[in-house]
Amino acid sequence: MVLDVWFTEKHEDKQGISLKVKEILYNGESEFQKIDIIDTEAYGRVLLLDGLVMTTEKDEFFYHEMISHVPLLAHPCPEKVLIIGGGDGGTIREVLKHPSVKEVTLCEIDKAVIDVSREYLPSIACCIDDSRVKIHIEDAVEHIKRKKNSFDAVLIDSTDPLGPGVGLFTEEFYANVRESLRGNGVMAAQTESPVTCQKEFKLINSLLNKVFSVVKPYFAPVPTYPGGNWSWTFCSKGLQPEINNESLAIEIEKTSKYYNREIYKAVFAVPNYVKNMMD
Amino acid sequence: MVLDVWFTEKHEDKQGISLKVKEILYNGESEFQKIDIIDTEAYGRVLLLDGLVMTTEKDEFFYHEMISHVPLLAHPCPEKVLIIGGGDGGTIREVLKHPSVKEVTLCEIDKAVIDVSREYLPSIACCIDDSRVKIHIEDAVEHIKRKKNSFDAVLIDSTDPLGPGVGLFTEEFYANVRESLRGNGVMAAQTESPVTCQKEFKLINSLLNKVFSVVKPYFAPVPTYPGGNWSWTFCSKGLQPEINNESLAIEIEKTSKYYNREIYKAVFAVPNYVKNMMD
Repeated sequence: MVLDVWFTEKHEDKQGISLKVKEILYNGESEFQKIDIIDTEAYGRVLLLDGLVMTTEKDEFFYHEMISHVPLLAHPCPEKVLIIGGGDGGTIREVLKHPSVKEVTLCEIDKAVIDVSREYLPSIACCIDDSRVKIHIEDAVEHIKRKKNSFDAVLIDSTDPLGPGVGLFTEEFYANVRESLRGNGVMAAQTESPVTCQKEFKLINSLLNKVFSVVKPYFAPVPTYPGGNWSWTFCSKGLQPEINNESLAIEIEKTSKYYNREIYKAVFAVPNYVKNMMD
Repeated sequence: MVLDVWFTEKHEDKQGISLKVKEILYNGESEFQKIDIIDTEAYGRVLLLDGLVMTTEKDEFFYHEMISHVPLLAHPCPEKVLIIGGGDGGTIREVLKHPSVKEVTLCEIDKAVIDVSREYLPSIACCIDDSRVKIHIEDAVEHIKRKKNSFDAVLIDSTDPLGPGVGLFTEEFYANVRESLRGNGVMAAQTESPVTCQKEFKLINSLLNKVFSVVKPYFAPVPTYPGGNWSWTFCSKGLQPEINNESLAIEIEKTSKYYNREIYKAVFAVPNYVKNMMD
């Protein structure tokens, strides 16, 4: 592309992140949403859903390591994991680094996201076809109702509380997730930006606090998300977000780009402006 | 302004941060650089130097708390502080929260930055005229050569290694800063983004390591800087970046928006990609 072409994701018509476009690789529309893949100078290939950046080749590691290793390293022996959303496959890839994991269920509403990721984002989608992975193309709101006492970890790797993702941000849904956990089961969810999505961050945290006895937000950069910083929240019926198996934590550290044991502790430090917001 | 007007700061012609503009309040040019003030929907008033975002009303607290409280809380009793650059006054405001501080010298090359900040950014520039503040309008490269064994803390609150700031990123300059410290003196400098300015980050850290025996980078969000995340580096001749006076640390926490004692420790966790970059 010889033109000077830029993509800008605008957030609330107030601010935006702009990326110089090398090539537009795919434009499509599924039953649920628009799906696009662009190749950018700064972050490589980018997956867009309804025009919003979901993941990029160069900065996806922040997000996928945070949503996977933080909950899984707290669990004594996660064998069965449910990923909700996550059609790009990045969370599957990280989850499968945990040797105890025997089965990963991906419950993704939109098969087209998986297909497009398989074709255009091989470094992210590389483990979708692993033999331990079961794919369910279904709305997680329905899927979770049938799953009682089933999973050691549920990871909510969803879009924002807009469009097809909206039902994943309700008290009823979180209560069903809680019921789907067995034993020391843990949950982690992406919970929006504490900088640019304060209303959503507060709402989600207040819902989670009604359902789970342990609710701990954690924070890390995602350079291509609005404000450059993001939150996830760790939830459980009692287990705290602390590394359970030190030797596995060291092993996972060797192939991680953001996570290490020091980072694991650091991401749970809650900035004062977030504390004030939650009061 | 009824037009849909956006300002975009482009970084390396690859990515950018876009802000919707409510009003252009000031456009000027000093002997050293272009100076602009715009009012934005998302971050309030923004100071731009040569078209780059220096600080904004709404997210300045991340930067100013990090460059001030991290070094000052490590020092047993900082009385004399030198700020290099920092003409907007935000660092002065935070430094003066430390009751031991008797004298703050601001060495800013460009008087126009101070004047424009005084007029347009009162919440940031509010303490520039405090009786403990001495202002020197001078190139810090020259100023520091005359200051031996003078300061308890030197804070390098500079622009990027471009234009008037370029001399502040050399081994000779850092060696002179070291000579200007007395006793347990500490230094902190803004050291660019570990995400979007990796070349600069590495170069600065390698220079600092030639000069200081303790060199510890630390990391925090700045939503309006490229990549949304930034680094500073703590340096000393032996003192470690640890809170020295717990009761003062609690006091400072009460009026801080980002810093608290947990955050103080957390910001020093070095992500794996940064460790790999430094190898």
